[in-house]
Amino acid sequence: MLELRLVQGSLLKKVLEAIKELVTDANFDCSGTGFSLQAMDSSHVALVALLLRSEGFEHYRCDRNLSMGMNLGNMAKMLRCAGNDDIITIKADDGSDTVTFMFESPNQDKIADFEMKLMDIDSEHLGIPDSEYQAIVRMPSSEFSRICKDLSSIGDTVIISVTKEGVKFSTAGDIGTANIVCRQNKTVDKPEESTIIEMQEPVSLTFALRYMNSFTKASPLSDQVTISLSSELPVVVEYKIGEMGYIRFYLAPKIEEDEEMKA
Amino acid sequence: MLELRLVQGSLLKKVLEAIKELVTDANFDCSGTGFSLQAMDSSHVALVALLLRSEGFEHYRCDRNLSMGMNLGNMAKMLRCAGNDDIITIKADDGSDTVTFMFESPNQDKIADFEMKLMDIDSEHLGIPDSEYQAIVRMPSSEFSRICKDLSSIGDTVIISVTKEGVKFSTAGDIGTANIVCRQNKTVDKPEESTIIEMQEPVSLTFALRYMNSFTKASPLSDQVTISLSSELPVVVEYKIGEMGYIRFYLAPKIEEDEEMKA
Amino acid sequence: MLELRLVQGSLLKKVLEAIKELVTDANFDCSGTGFSLQAMDSSHVALVALLLRSEGFEHYRCDRNLSMGMNLGNMAKMLRCAGNDDIITIKADDGSDTVTFMFESPNQDKIADFEMKLMDIDSEHLGIPDSEYQAIVRMPSSEFSRICKDLSSIGDTVIISVTKEGVKFSTAGDIGTANIVCRQNKTVDKPEESTIIEMQEPVSLTFALRYMNSFTKASPLSDQVTISLSSELPVVVEYKIGEMGYIRFYLAPKIEEDEEMKA
Repeated sequence: MLELRLVQGSLLKKVLEAIKELVTDANFDCSGTGFSLQAMDSSHVALVALLLRSEGFEHYRCDRNLSMGMNLGNMAKMLRCAGNDDIITIKADDGSDTVTFMFESPNQDKIADFEMKLMDIDSEHLGIPDSEYQAIVRMPSSEFSRICKDLSSIGDTVIISVTKEGVKFSTAGDIGTANIVCRQNKTVDKPEESTIIEMQEPVSLTFALRYMNSFTKASPLSDQVTISLSSELPVVVEYKIGEMGYIRFYLAPKIEEDEEMKA
Repeated sequence: MLELRLVQGSLLKKVLEAIKELVTDANFDCSGTGFSLQAMDSSHVALVALLLRSEGFEHYRCDRNLSMGMNLGNMAKMLRCAGNDDIITIKADDGSDTVTFMFESPNQDKIADFEMKLMDIDSEHLGIPDSEYQAIVRMPSSEFSRICKDLSSIGDTVIISVTKEGVKFSTAGDIGTANIVCRQNKTVDKPEESTIIEMQEPVSLTFALRYMNSFTKASPLSDQVTISLSSELPVVVEYKIGEMGYIRFYLAPKIEEDEEMKA
Repeated sequence: MLELRLVQGSLLKKVLEAIKELVTDANFDCSGTGFSLQAMDSSHVALVALLLRSEGFEHYRCDRNLSMGMNLGNMAKMLRCAGNDDIITIKADDGSDTVTFMFESPNQDKIADFEMKLMDIDSEHLGIPDSEYQAIVRMPSSEFSRICKDLSSIGDTVIISVTKEGVKFSTAGDIGTANIVCRQNKTVDKPEESTIIEMQEPVSLTFALRYMNSFTKASPLSDQVTISLSSELPVVVEYKIGEMGYIRFYLAPKIEEDEEMKA
C-alpha cells in the first residue's frame, strides 16, 4: 500500500505543469527514498529527473517499491482541480491499476478524490553518474526564463558562454543577432536575485532554445536555477523543490551549429 | 412609455453576461411588478427566469405592460459599452420598434445613448408552480463554479448527491473518476462562505455539466448560489440579484445515465 | 557615427507598439534636431509622424544626418526584449548596414546588444503645413480609446461633432445606433482627467473607426490625447511623448458617408 501526504500540495501541481509539455507518459517510482521519475521527452532528446524525498512528506507510507505508469497530461488535469492551498495525498493499493489523488482544503470543508487509471509503460532507468562541471551558473530562474524567451524571438539556438566575469547568452536569426550578458553578482540584498558563477575553465556550448524554453516551465518551483556546463556532457538545468528535492533537465549540446556560429 | 433607471447599472451588465450564452433571442416583459424574462435555451433543454423588481430601480415608469423582443448578443454588446459605475436607463416609447439604453458616468461627464432595434419573438410563458424540494443546498457561488469547471475536465455529467453531512459532486470519464464532497458549514465568520443544507430526504440526481457550466456564468451577480433538488423535478439553480430579484436556471435531470452510473 | 542614449527606454518600446500595426517598414531619420519618422500606413490612408527631440536623450551624438530603413515588426520584437526600466542606446556606425539596440538594466547587471539589419526604403518626406483648426479637443487618452473600441462593436465609422458644450461621437450599424457625448470639464482635480474644447466654429466629420482604433495603440504614451479638426483638413490625433516629442496621426475625413449619415 502507498500513501503519501504532501501538505504543500501546490508543489506537486507545479511539478506537473513543469514537465507535462516535455513528457507525455512516464513511470513514477516510489521507494523508501522518495517519489521519483526519470523520463526522456517525446522526441528522445532531453531527459527529466524528478525527486521528492520521503522526508518532505507529512506522511510517507510505501510498503514496497512501486512503479506507476501515468499519462502526465491526465495527471495534470486532475491536479489542476486541487486548490493552491490544498493538502494532496497520493494513494494506491497493492496490485491496483488505479491511483487516487485526494485534495483536502485547508479548513477540511471540501474533500475531493480523483481516481486515475494507470498505464503499463516500458522504460529503462539510466544511471546518471556524478560529474565535475567546467562551469556552474546559479541565477534567478525568472531571469533565465526571460532570456530564453527573448532570444527565441530572434533565433532557434542559444550559445551559453561562461567566463569569470559573467555568462553570455547569444543567438542569431534572419532579422539579426542578440547577445545578453549577466554579470556575476553576489552582493545583492536578496540572495534569490544573485548570480553566482563557479568556473574551472571557460566554456561555450550551443543548445536548442525550444528545449530550454520547456525547462523554464519549472520556474514557479524555485527562485533560482542552476546551470551546469561541460564540453563533453549534457547541460544540467536544475530547479530545487523546496527542501525536499529537485527537477533536473539534461540536454546534449549541438555540436556542428556551435562551430558554425562561432566561425 | 417606459423609463427604468438603475443606479447600479453593473447589475444589468452582469445579467446579460450570465444569460447571453444560453439564450439567443428573448422577450423582456415590463409590468408594474418589474422587468422580467423567461426563456428556453436554444436547444430547448434549460429554462432561464429573470426578475428585477420595480422597487429596485431608482425610477420605474411603465405606463402599460410591454413585451420587448431583443437579441441578447446585441444587447450584451451595447451594455458592455457601459462603465461599471454607470447609471443605466432603459427607455422605450409606446409602439416604438426600438429600445434605448442610456449610460451616465458617475460625474455626468459622459452620456451615451445606444438605440437597438426590437424583434418580434414568439414565446409562451410557462407557469412554474412553487414546489417542495427534497434538498436545498446554499453554497458559495465561486465554489460551485469551480467544481463544475473542474469536473468538466474529467466527464460530461455530474451526479449531485445530498445527505445531511454534505453535498457530493461526482463524475466519470475516460481518464478516471472524481468525487468532490462539500461539508455543511454554518459557522464561518463570513456568511458568504457558508455551505448550508436543508434536507427532507437524501437525493441523488444527474445533470449535463455543459448546462451547469453555463449557469455559473451568473456567479458575478451573487456570492451565494442556491441549488434546489427533487427526484421528480428540474433542479433550480438560483442567483440573487442584490435585494431586487434573481436569475433562476431550471434543468431536468438525466434519467438513464443516472441509473447507469449508480450501477 | 550615431549614439543615442535614452534613460527612459520604455518610451521607445511604447512608440514601437503604437505604430508597428499601422506601418510595416519605415525610415527613421536622425539629425541634430532629433530622432524622427514619417510614414504612410500600408494602405496609404493614414500618416504617422514621430519626433523624439535630441534634448530628451541623456546622450545624443549624430555626426551627420542619417536615414535608417527598419522593419518595424522586427524592431518591436527586439525592443520587447528590453526591460521596462532599462536604458536603451541606439548605435550605428557610418555606412553600416546594421543598427544596434543596447539595453542596460538599472543595476547594470544585465547588458544586451541586439543588432538588426537595415533596409533600403524609398520614401518621400511630406511637408505638413501648420494649420488653423476649427476645433481642438483635449481629453483623456484612455477615454478616447474606450469610445473608439465601444463604437466599433456597433459600426464601422465614427462621426465626431464638436460644439461648445462637448464632443459627440456617433455611429450606426446593423444592430442600432450609438451616441456618446463627453462634456467639457476643466475643473477636475487631476488635469490628466480633464476634457477641454477650443472651438472656432462647430465641426462634424466622419472617420473610419479601424484607423482610429489603431491610433489609440499610442495611449500608453500619454494620459491625454489632442484631436484637431477642420472640415478641409485631415484630423490630427496627437499623443505627447513626455517632454521630448510626440506621435501624430493624420487621417482624411470620409466625405460621402458623412453626408449620408447626416441625412
